[in-house]
Amino acid sequence: MKIIDIQEKTFPISSDIKNAYISFTKMDCSVVAIKTDVKINGENIIGYGFHSNGRYAVGELLKKRFIPRLKEASSKSLINDVGDNFSPEKIWKILMQNEKPGGHGERSTAVGTIDMAIWDIVSKIEQVPLYEHLAKKYGDGKFTNKIFVYAAGGYYYPGKDIPMLMDEMKSYLNMGFTTVKMKIGGAPLVEDLKRIESVLKLVGSGKNLCVDANGRFDLKTAIEYGKALEQYELKWFEEAGDPLDYHLNAELTKN
Amino acid sequence: MKIIDIQEKTFPISSDIKNAYISFTKMDCSVVAIKTDVKINGENIIGYGFHSNGRYAVGELLKKRFIPRLKEASSKSLINDVGDNFSPEKIWKILMQNEKPGGHGERSTAVGTIDMAIWDIVSKIEQVPLYEHLAKKYGDGKFTNKIFVYAAGGYYYPGKDIPMLMDEMKSYLNMGFTTVKMKIGGAPLVEDLKRIESVLKLVGSGKNLCVDANGRFDLKTAIEYGKALEQYELKWFEEAGDPLDYHLNAELTKN
Repeated sequence: MKIIDIQEKTFPISSDIKNAYISFTKMDCSVVAIKTDVKINGENIIGYGFHSNGRYAVGELLKKRFIPRLKEASSKSLINDVGDNFSPEKIWKILMQNEKPGGHGERSTAVGTIDMAIWDIVSKIEQVPLYEHLAKKYGDGKFTNKIFVYAAGGYYYPGKDIPMLMDEMKSYLNMGFTTVKMKIGGAPLVEDLKRIESVLKLVGSGKNLCVDANGRFDLKTAIEYGKALEQYELKWFEEAGDPLDYHLNAELTKN
Repeated sequence: MKIIDIQEKTFPISSDIKNAYISFTKMDCSVVAIKTDVKINGENIIGYGFHSNGRYAVGELLKKRFIPRLKEASSKSLINDVGDNFSPEKIWKILMQNEKPGGHGERSTAVGTIDMAIWDIVSKIEQVPLYEHLAKKYGDGKFTNKIFVYAAGGYYYPGKDIPMLMDEMKSYLNMGFTTVKMKIGGAPLVEDLKRIESVLKLVGSGKNLCVDANGRFDLKTAIEYGKALEQYELKWFEEAGDPLDYHLNAELTKN
């Protein structure tokens, strides 16, 4: 049981949208395909991985550091103790060899992209969906194939007014979503409240609406928004301030 | 006053040394040169930047994200309010445009490399050493051209025994260093204590010796080492555990 090829490709995923913090005009994304010699119905199992939008592609990190480490590792070192599948845990340790501790950043994107492809391989070899494998291996064995989902959108882009925002949200409801998430913080508070109230008319209740500031606010603005939003009883208010601003986040949990 | 060219080059800095955490056999480093149209004695001022060893080169990040952002910015946006020099603060903000908050990692290496080159330009335009500029701009204007330095070495490499470690340390003393730093944690505690005691014989006192575990230890081992090292009254014990392990670091400050 071994890996016989690993490919990385960077794809542009640029668009005119922006959230409160960044524009996506130059965004791209790495996709990884890992081919194994394990065959099912005569076809080699290939695992695929990609990363979240919002962090840029990590092609050079993958090609220079992480893919070579995986290729150079002995086949045996990638396999679980029983010997019947690849071991995501052992592979993670191989990937993180010769990485200084601290400051993960781009490398966690690169390692996570490979990790996703490995888990894809593991579930394909088991011939069960990954959620079923995880439930059996780490949980109590029970699983469901129903899960809470929501449509994340409501980005800002040039010329987008409230009717256009409402059209976007209507399209999600038409797809069957009952909960939606929209960006805030890219406009002044007064305008954001108008945007929120318009969407509330569509989704019926704050329980069906989440907002996301993408880490833009300072403490004062975060609290200002929090107080202004209180009346709507929203499902959640996501990433008010910089995730690394521990002081801000500690203060917010008190408010 | 403007930037007219920016070049990045990746240099291998691989060697057989290793610290407690990583090997340097595949290490490399980015060097940046930023050319301006400001001339002194007929020559364009060029600022140079490079980053610490231990984190890998960041060529793709520089070439795809940070150098283009700097090149695309208007010349005026790079200059300080008085208009007599570049502004490292404004340039930093331009570099960090369209970067999601959180998880800095490789991008802080890339931004820091450019930042170093910009500060180099600033001091060259001022025609004073950077420490003098910084003292005047941010401090009380007083500065010294004397500073505490130490020789950092004592890495592990294959076949390196205690006499070789002592020869290395003697070479630092011969250069005029009085304080040295050596790696620990790449060997068992008993062996590390022997290594330390040998070096202590050379430097005379614990006040002249620092040790660095490069983040390798878990809490138990960190405390074990700390207690064993106490007798030597060393100058410092650096990075006992993972810098992101807040629990470990909080516990260590109590011990």
